[in-house]
Amino acid sequence: MRVFNFAAGPATLPLQVLEQARDELTDWQGCGMSVMEVSHRSGTFVAAARAAESRLRELLSVPPNYKVLFLQGGATGQFAAIPLNLAGAEARADYLNTGAWSKKAIAEARRFLAHVNVAADESATNYTTVPAAASLRLDPAAAYLHYTANETIGGVEFPYVPDSGAVPLIADMSSSILSRPVPVERFGLIYGGAQKNIGPAGLVVVIVREELLGRARPGTPSVWDYHAMAAEDSMLNTPPTFALYLAGLVFKWLQEQGGLSVIAARNEAKARALYEAIDGSGFYRNPVDKGCRSWMNVPFTLADPALDALFLSTARAAGLVNLEGHRSVGGMRASLYNAMPPEGVAALVACMKEFERRHG
Amino acid sequence: MRVFNFAAGPATLPLQVLEQARDELTDWQGCGMSVMEVSHRSGTFVAAARAAESRLRELLSVPPNYKVLFLQGGATGQFAAIPLNLAGAEARADYLNTGAWSKKAIAEARRFLAHVNVAADESATNYTTVPAAASLRLDPAAAYLHYTANETIGGVEFPYVPDSGAVPLIADMSSSILSRPVPVERFGLIYGGAQKNIGPAGLVVVIVREELLGRARPGTPSVWDYHAMAAEDSMLNTPPTFALYLAGLVFKWLQEQGGLSVIAARNEAKARALYEAIDGSGFYRNPVDKGCRSWMNVPFTLADPALDALFLSTARAAGLVNLEGHRSVGGMRASLYNAMPPEGVAALVACMKEFERRHG
Repeated sequence: MRVFNFAAGPATLPLQVLEQARDELTDWQGCGMSVMEVSHRSGTFVAAARAAESRLRELLSVPPNYKVLFLQGGATGQFAAIPLNLAGAEARADYLNTGAWSKKAIAEARRFLAHVNVAADESATNYTTVPAAASLRLDPAAAYLHYTANETIGGVEFPYVPDSGAVPLIADMSSSILSRPVPVERFGLIYGGAQKNIGPAGLVVVIVREELLGRARPGTPSVWDYHAMAAEDSMLNTPPTFALYLAGLVFKWLQEQGGLSVIAARNEAKARALYEAIDGSGFYRNPVDKGCRSWMNVPFTLADPALDALFLSTARAAGLVNLEGHRSVGGMRASLYNAMPPEGVAALVACMKEFERRHG
Repeated sequence: MRVFNFAAGPATLPLQVLEQARDELTDWQGCGMSVMEVSHRSGTFVAAARAAESRLRELLSVPPNYKVLFLQGGATGQFAAIPLNLAGAEARADYLNTGAWSKKAIAEARRFLAHVNVAADESATNYTTVPAAASLRLDPAAAYLHYTANETIGGVEFPYVPDSGAVPLIADMSSSILSRPVPVERFGLIYGGAQKNIGPAGLVVVIVREELLGRARPGTPSVWDYHAMAAEDSMLNTPPTFALYLAGLVFKWLQEQGGLSVIAARNEAKARALYEAIDGSGFYRNPVDKGCRSWMNVPFTLADPALDALFLSTARAAGLVNLEGHRSVGGMRASLYNAMPPEGVAALVACMKEFERRHG
């Protein structure tokens, strides 16, 4: 009995993908071994890794002058790897602070950079909006501009791509990658942990413009040296093979759905249904400015927080799980990643309406 | 149809473990979700992670003043993390060079240390032996002594634990961890990539004496800061949850087998059977000194290398796969990790004898 899983990550995956992984778990492609047991240097595995990369490139229309890297250490690892690869120890970089994940990226960057310029800071709004495009206080001498395209906890998503001029633009897209088309050519680097829209935790995808390779400072760990990893097709050391295999199945599933335009339309409709239910209620509330509400992560509160526990148990009884808000903010949160079917959102909306009818 | 998989890593896993993972892949513990889809902060997953750590501690008799960390980035990541955590930038450290993996560890350490003292170097023997215990040219001012307990490519395994005096002893046990009991209390730190005796690639286990925590130099990436990771029970960021789950199943399987004394006896018998077949043949040859032959990785050559391809295809036809030697050395290699049953070794020996009878 599968449930509708609204967790923020690790998160729900397409059932079709899980069933394929299950069916071939002890015998992959008739080789008599699990994909977990196969050498990353074997022809079959290398072919699967190449296919995964090709599918991802096609889905995101990644230009040929960009490398796609499959690395370990999560987005938090990249918080360190980015300054190590793209800025000298004496360098400066711009960061936009729009919530919990921006703050973490900034804190880690401060360990590696002489100066982090917070070019916009939404802490005064309690992270309920994003800065206006014209308000960014950018440093023309910055090594790069970093921002968090979607804040998983706050549920704030940039409705625009910041204009960083000649400075390379870097986006943490952990919780929004593959949810809609993205103009990759406007970015120096895009990265995202796998455990939302890509696959199992333990894999992080980095898409980086080739001209940014080869700038790593001395003392950059080899497994995070973009140039060294690109030269070895992400196999300088053993990659997380099972996670990479599963990501390939998810990419294939996305293509079968019709690609990111179809996925984006579906995601927009899912998010609209939930936000309309919230806004139309007077019982539920989402604090985020309407212009920058996340399609992926929808936090909401009840008029009476004393009812939170009852709401969560009622939802759980209806097969709607992991709706708890992040431990740092409380309330509720529904994550609507690609693998969440519209039926899951419809069931949630129905549950919310019935709960309001009985307790509102 | 499962085969006997002699790959060096990623490597064969216990079928019982794979079957359990398969059976619960879309519905873990009746929660209606895959273990891949469950939050790492959920009660069920935290309990599974704690159980995995407890089982590992019990298997290896890890003393209470040691922390067990589950990290990302593989052993190659630890080649960087070890100097970052345990030595200042001006520090010196001792390394023993006994083969390909020692060399990689040394090359990476040189990126982070003012001086790497190669306290023993077996390159002159073509890495067919280990240094005598009394011959190590140790630096009493070294921050630590690092060695590779088992060389996966060369098939050389230390039959003794080096005496590093007051200097912390560090061992890369990627390809020998859990193959036999180990006196953990003699080590400052033991680490190992999962993809041989632990589980899927993408997980690295670090067992470190608590007094060595908190020494990380400024600029150590948070996800590799042992102190920070220990404080968060290895969940400073999202861990590779599926790999950790599967490692827990492997630890449980090891306990069900009777623990490491039973496993060690089985491994010794498996290795002895293969080495006896090689030494008794005149047709096959293993170049390693008898006193330090690996139980886990057995490289061997044929009297006539022109027969290599025929041997490999003959073995493959008998369901014995991945016997190719490492691409850097050629010949053959049979890896006999814990999950390789004695029946697999018996089948290999039988195949070798028949091949010699026909072509010797």
